[in-house]
Amino acid sequence: MFPYKTSITFDRKSNQPLYLQLSNQLIALINANRLPSKTKLPGSRTLAALLEVHRKTIVACYDELLLQGWIETIPQRGTFVHSDLPELQQQDFSEDSIIKDKNTTGFQFYKRDHLQKNTAIVSTGFITLNDGVSDARLTPINDIARIYRRITSKKNASEHLSYGSVYGNETLRVILASYLSQTRGLDISKEQILITRGSQNGIYLASQLLFKKGDCVLVGDTNYASADTTFKNQEAKLIRVDVDVFGLNTNQIEEICQKQNIKGVYVTSHHHHPTTVTLSAERRIHLLNLAQKYNFAIIEDDYDYDFNYNHSPILPLASHDVNGNVIYIGSVCKTVAPVFRVGYLVAPKAFVDEAAAYRKIVDRQGDALLELTFASFIKSGDLDRHIKKVLKIYKVRRDLMCSLLTEKLAAYFEFEIPKGGMAIWLSLTKKLTWKRVAEAALLQQLEIGDWTRYDPENLGHNAIRLGFASYNEAEIYQLIEKFELTFKAIEEEKSS
Amino acid sequence: MFPYKTSITFDRKSNQPLYLQLSNQLIALINANRLPSKTKLPGSRTLAALLEVHRKTIVACYDELLLQGWIETIPQRGTFVHSDLPELQQQDFSEDSIIKDKNTTGFQFYKRDHLQKNTAIVSTGFITLNDGVSDARLTPINDIARIYRRITSKKNASEHLSYGSVYGNETLRVILASYLSQTRGLDISKEQILITRGSQNGIYLASQLLFKKGDCVLVGDTNYASADTTFKNQEAKLIRVDVDVFGLNTNQIEEICQKQNIKGVYVTSHHHHPTTVTLSAERRIHLLNLAQKYNFAIIEDDYDYDFNYNHSPILPLASHDVNGNVIYIGSVCKTVAPVFRVGYLVAPKAFVDEAAAYRKIVDRQGDALLELTFASFIKSGDLDRHIKKVLKIYKVRRDLMCSLLTEKLAAYFEFEIPKGGMAIWLSLTKKLTWKRVAEAALLQQLEIGDWTRYDPENLGHNAIRLGFASYNEAEIYQLIEKFELTFKAIEEEKSS
Repeated sequence: MFPYKTSITFDRKSNQPLYLQLSNQLIALINANRLPSKTKLPGSRTLAALLEVHRKTIVACYDELLLQGWIETIPQRGTFVHSDLPELQQQDFSEDSIIKDKNTTGFQFYKRDHLQKNTAIVSTGFITLNDGVSDARLTPINDIARIYRRITSKKNASEHLSYGSVYGNETLRVILASYLSQTRGLDISKEQILITRGSQNGIYLASQLLFKKGDCVLVGDTNYASADTTFKNQEAKLIRVDVDVFGLNTNQIEEICQKQNIKGVYVTSHHHHPTTVTLSAERRIHLLNLAQKYNFAIIEDDYDYDFNYNHSPILPLASHDVNGNVIYIGSVCKTVAPVFRVGYLVAPKAFVDEAAAYRKIVDRQGDALLELTFASFIKSGDLDRHIKKVLKIYKVRRDLMCSLLTEKLAAYFEFEIPKGGMAIWLSLTKKLTWKRVAEAALLQQLEIGDWTRYDPENLGHNAIRLGFASYNEAEIYQLIEKFELTFKAIEEEKSS
Repeated sequence: MFPYKTSITFDRKSNQPLYLQLSNQLIALINANRLPSKTKLPGSRTLAALLEVHRKTIVACYDELLLQGWIETIPQRGTFVHSDLPELQQQDFSEDSIIKDKNTTGFQFYKRDHLQKNTAIVSTGFITLNDGVSDARLTPINDIARIYRRITSKKNASEHLSYGSVYGNETLRVILASYLSQTRGLDISKEQILITRGSQNGIYLASQLLFKKGDCVLVGDTNYASADTTFKNQEAKLIRVDVDVFGLNTNQIEEICQKQNIKGVYVTSHHHHPTTVTLSAERRIHLLNLAQKYNFAIIEDDYDYDFNYNHSPILPLASHDVNGNVIYIGSVCKTVAPVFRVGYLVAPKAFVDEAAAYRKIVDRQGDALLELTFASFIKSGDLDRHIKKVLKIYKVRRDLMCSLLTEKLAAYFEFEIPKGGMAIWLSLTKKLTWKRVAEAALLQQLEIGDWTRYDPENLGHNAIRLGFASYNEAEIYQLIEKFELTFKAIEEEKSS
């Protein structure tokens, strides 16, 4: 008889029922031709005794294998490996071949070097810098959960539970058209709005429609790293344009357009990512005129619109777009909390229609319940109240962070006080590199993060974005202290 | 003076504040060079009187334009269009050019013929056929909303509100690894799981990694239309393989593999989509062996696993995959409700890592709160209880639908009673086409939907999927009656 006892093992700590463990191992043995077609299997009592399991386990296993067609029962003769199994390929059987390697694939797939791979996990106790994110602790989570509950308990809730529109929930589109008109001066109707899973999803969908291999896209030097990655993923050709205190250099853009065909320009007009400057009025007109003249798309990623400390926000390029050149992208993720993946892409209807058709194969549709929740959150004025509330808090944090940087660390850092947003563009002054600072900071339990993303072409931009909004006052003091200790350690090492 | 009164109009029904309407129109006039650089603007009182608005509106508008740098104030002289505006391109100004066309773009983008464009909206009162969806009215929405509320009101809730893992929520991955092991015999760890936005999202991500232009993918004839579209989107070459009562013809697959390089095979092994047949045990082994021999990926879309009426489900190919050939895709969308976009992709870790890196540019991450909700829903046994409950209901509906089809419509339809799933593969017998039937059905307020998707290559498959699960008994009687009236009308027209 086949050596069942030594060939079959049970993992009694596993969640998998014993009969399934047994079934899988028998199937593997059949597959490996160790139990060839027509082999007689032991009776359930015999096998149960042999494997020291309950007879019910064997019966359940045989039932499963019968159902699946791996074995057959011949009356008065017993149970056999099925006679109709195909001739199996001969294998050099070894124990290894049934121990599955959980890492490697048995097939080829495309790996993309431009994609950012799994980032390291930081130990607790560390302060980790970010490039400007909201403080999750200020999220009006109870209000949002209450609205969600109200929507799901309505009598008509089941209308929203089945398949919905690929454009996003109708109510949210209507409310957003009105909200974006009131707050941003966009003269749009709901047909021009696609509800996305946040800004990144908007950039991705726009890229799919705009770029194929070799198409040119203009981006800032430096630029928001995720946007760069998304364009590279389309095998688009990235051409970098200088960024100064007025934003993207539009004269350079004009020169490039005179020489070659440009499909798109990516711009974070409100506050350039990463440097935080605002695109000047002069350049805004210039860019819009160039787009009209040279027929390129402006991808306007207005991630920072809601965050202004000194004056009311500057209206987006999209609000002056008379020729249908602007694809306007925004989200509530940055403003409320990153976990709520609700954003929008605003563009001429023909573009929105194509983007919606494309999104159908990406993820079919959005979350109508969450979209309805935010429709209500916006319409009731809760969103505006939330923005006002956190703006006050973030302004205090910005001022504290900036004054401490000036007071304690002026010898090492240069920066301008940002007029808006959630981050400071922080340059190292002395002959230090962020690499060196990051290494020394780790010893102070301060995690700088990936500074290289702010200088993707190795042009020597010796700066990072230092988010300030997510830290309370105590944490800001702590962060500054860790920086002080870091530089102290570096100085001591130098002088020793 | 410039004819402000005739050049500027207000839409008083619009949600956009008057001062923003005015700002935008002035900017458009500056852009169009009708108000050139250095033009003196009227005082706020004068303009207010002229345009019949409150003076505050003009002041707010001028403030906005000042901030944005469109105009400047020169003390003791007045307000002027900014002197530093760039030389604007000369335009042949007409009224049209400031009326934005909300449809067409001022740039080129790629349109994809293979994508399904906006589908028609059906009037209420109609019964609309579907290809097998759950009944939204049976969704345990109150239980789910209660769990969501509980999770959001926990003290540590804010941990889940900021940016999270691109792989999906850790807790759900752990629970799914155990759940898929118990229910489907998958011997996996959480590192092999990527949480997706549902099955379609899984198919999309897998396709991005597997296929580039010209790569070959084998699919059934006929096959799930959305999968076909997704592969076509990658410009992959689709090769169709016959489907009979045992599922995909694996001998044909072997012949194809002998001749050319195959990157992947898409299979809905549990119940072939659309024909509802189950892939036989023999062919399962054969397909796995072929994948191992020819190094192709099996994309196993197990959308129907939870729905079996006659016996326990057949374990997926993935549970016998010893060589890392299977990419296993499933979701809770089909089982609980389509609005909950939570699914999974299970594959060797190297593949999951690359898919996670790719998903980061698609939509950054999933909804951690919803993922935690489903982690709890699964772990508590609620999901299993829900499946048991709806299975009983759907079985009654299947039996009723099938017996009525046999009793009342046997002259027109042929079908096998499906052993599982939520749809019947319904062939027309007589010399009728679905086109003809669909036209006649519309007059009975019965919407057949897009029957062509079941025969993408025009091979004469005269069948559609008739979903039965989403209708209650009264609706099933109504649907059958509408079919009877449809055929009656067709017969009458013929004989007249």
